[in-house]
This record gives sequence, C-alpha cells and structure tokens, in this order.
Amino acid sequence: MEKLYTGKTKDVYQLENGNVLLKFKDDCTGKDGKFDPGENSVGLTIEGIGRENLKTSVHYFELLKAAGVKTHYVSADVENATMEVLPATVFGHGLEVICRLVATGSFIRRYGEYMEDGTRIEGGYVETTFKDDAKGDPLVTKDALAVLGVMTPEMYDSMKEQTLAITKVVADDLAKKGMDLYDIKFEFGYDKNGEVILIDEIASGNMRVYKDGKIVDPMDLTKMILA
Amino acid sequence: MEKLYTGKTKDVYQLENGNVLLKFKDDCTGKDGKFDPGENSVGLTIEGIGRENLKTSVHYFELLKAAGVKTHYVSADVENATMEVLPATVFGHGLEVICRLVATGSFIRRYGEYMEDGTRIEGGYVETTFKDDAKGDPLVTKDALAVLGVMTPEMYDSMKEQTLAITKVVADDLAKKGMDLYDIKFEFGYDKNGEVILIDEIASGNMRVYKDGKIVDPMDLTKMILA
Repeated sequence: MEKLYTGKTKDVYQLENGNVLLKFKDDCTGKDGKFDPGENSVGLTIEGIGRENLKTSVHYFELLKAAGVKTHYVSADVENATMEVLPATVFGHGLEVICRLVATGSFIRRYGEYMEDGTRIEGGYVETTFKDDAKGDPLVTKDALAVLGVMTPEMYDSMKEQTLAITKVVADDLAKKGMDLYDIKFEFGYDKNGEVILIDEIASGNMRVYKDGKIVDPMDLTKMILA
Repeated sequence: MEKLYTGKTKDVYQLENGNVLLKFKDDCTGKDGKFDPGENSVGLTIEGIGRENLKTSVHYFELLKAAGVKTHYVSADVENATMEVLPATVFGHGLEVICRLVATGSFIRRYGEYMEDGTRIEGGYVETTFKDDAKGDPLVTKDALAVLGVMTPEMYDSMKEQTLAITKVVADDLAKKGMDLYDIKFEFGYDKNGEVILIDEIASGNMRVYKDGKIVDPMDLTKMILA
C-alpha cells in the first residue's frame, strides 16, 4: 500500500480499490505529556487509544449510516486500527466546522457581551474556522469562503445542513447515556462529483460534553460512549 | 433641544419633529496627537474638521438619494455643522459593516494563506464586526447575529445588499476623481418599522483609498472628495 500522508494521530494509505485506508495511531495531541485535543502537536502516546478512537468513530458513523447521512466511512478493522473511507478532497489547507448547542468557550470569548456562558442555542449554530495556529484559527464566513475560492455557497449550505443533522445524531446518542453535548467539531471534504461529505473521525477529542453539570474528560467520555 | 448622547466626534440631540440632530465636532479619534480613524478615543482637535466631515457625508448622502438608496439623512446645516437624520436604533452595542473591494488589512492578516494582499474582490465582500476594543473587534457571522438576537437573517440580507449598492456609489465617485476604493466601513440601524437604513456618517476616516498605487491620507482625501 502506498502511504499518502503521515498525520499526527493517523496515517493515510491508498487502497487498490480506489478507496483510502486510515490507520489510527496511539499518538495523541497534547502538551507536556497531558492529552489536549485542542493542541496541534503530538504530546504523548497512550497505549490502545488509536483503537478506542476508531471504535468511537465507527459507533457514530454506523449511527449516521442508519440515519441516512452519507459520510466517507466504508468499513473498519478494529483489531488493526484501520478504517476504509471514500476518497475526498479537503477544503483549503484545513477547515474546521463547529456546531454549538450551548454557548461557551471561544464563542463567549468573542461574544460574551451579548450572551451568557452556558446559554442553550435552540436548533444549533454552525461556524467555520481555518486551522491556522499562528493566526489563532480565524473565523471565516460563508461569503469569505466563496471569495477565497475554498468552497461555493451551495457547498457551504450542504455542509451546514449536514453538520446540524450529524450533531443531532451525536447529541441524541449522548443524551441517552445521560450526557449533554455542548459543541462538536468536524471536518468535511468533497468527492469527485463535488458532493460534500463528512470526513476524518468523530471521537471524544472533538466534542465538549457535560454530565451532571461537569465537563467530561475525553478519556472518560470514550469509555462512556462505548459502554 | 434635549441632548440624547455625547459622542467622541458627534453629539446627538432630539428634535421636536421626531427627527434627530447630529452636531459634528472638531474632535478626532487618534493617539498621541495623530489622527487615526481606527482609534477609539479622542486624540486631537482639528479646527474645522467637523464641518469638513459633514460636507463629505452630505456629498455622499445626496449621491445616494439620487441613486434611490434610502438612508437616515434628511438635511444639513454646514455653517452650524449639524445634520438632521431620521431616528434609528443601532444594532447591539455597535456593529461595523465592512465592504472590501480589494483584499488588504485585517482580511489578509486573517486569510493571507489563501489570498495575496492587494487582490481585487469581484463584486465586493461584506463582513460585520462588533465594536469591542478589548476583544479586537471580533468578526461575527450572519448566523451568529441571529443567534445573539442582534438582527434577523432578513435584516442581514437587506444590510448586505445596501452595503454593496452604497459602496458602488462611493467607489464610482472616487474613480471619477482618479482614486481607487479598497474598503469602507458603515453603520446601519433600523427604524420603527424594522427597516434597515444606513446611519452615522460617510467620511474619509471610514475608507481606505489609493491613488497612483499609494494610500491617500484621510485629510487629503477629504479635500480631494470636496474639490
């Protein structure tokens, strides 16, 4: 298999059938030996975390498939920590799509003058940021994405609609387990027909979840999702 | 006349006919005695600049009236440096609407990875930021403005459409004078029927203008606009 890309937490290989294989690694983003999904460099290795993240992703990709939401997910081999996915092109040099059900974090840092931390956002709010550490992951609007040639307004509308639907599937699953999803981030790409689909993974490190009024640590969250 | 508000560069009075009177002052925003339209505190006083800014605003408000764009402008008394305007409510605690015809400044600081400084943006690009020095005037999307209860999506669409039309009127006027409008910022409000209209002023300090490849100083720009 030809290796296409060596990532921080995943390696990417070309499959002969035209699909792509993601190999989940035990390397985690973090700082000073402490796991932090918001960090952009590998900070530590946790034995078996690659498989745990893969199992979490498979759990949600299967729920999405059942709900009729098409994603890049094809199949997984948990033993070998690999997931087969459809080929897709990422938007720009990395774009994060955030869906917020409860206003907190950077949203409140920006707009705290207008909304109290912890306010529930009816129906959810979707925003996009460029992955760019040096620039502090700048917010980018639908109109700017079009001007910059990153995606068409129609692609944005499809991505936003899918984000709201996918977030609802994840939030409903967490609610059944007694947990409250505050916000979640995704990555999208587009296939050879220009169709926008969810790519990458859906793991504990990509969401902020509360239980009984307290934030749930990503490691505990994985266990509770897979319980 | 009842004084409604004491501003940095304008005072605001209630008129008996229901309209509002803006009194343009000679105080300018700036720092260390140097005029800087981007600063938020009064830095110096320039004899007669209130009247010059009023004349510039009248010039553009009259052009807009002729082009069929309704604004808050009713009439002006240049001698006394006052402008009569329709009453309007501002959005939130201050919202700036920026229209960019050439990508530069904060747009490039945010998105320089995707576009070269000085790239012309066909048709123009509109974005909104909250006036909030401590937070660095954060960008805010159409969806966030709705979630925060600042304006409805329909109000945003009207504001964006007007911004593009108004920018074209100003850019065409500057082009006739041999100048090139890069970007311009506006303030909008809404009247008692919820109709969105341009408020405040249209002065040299609100736009970035180039001539023969060099940026034009706001004081020189005023003279060239009024020449």
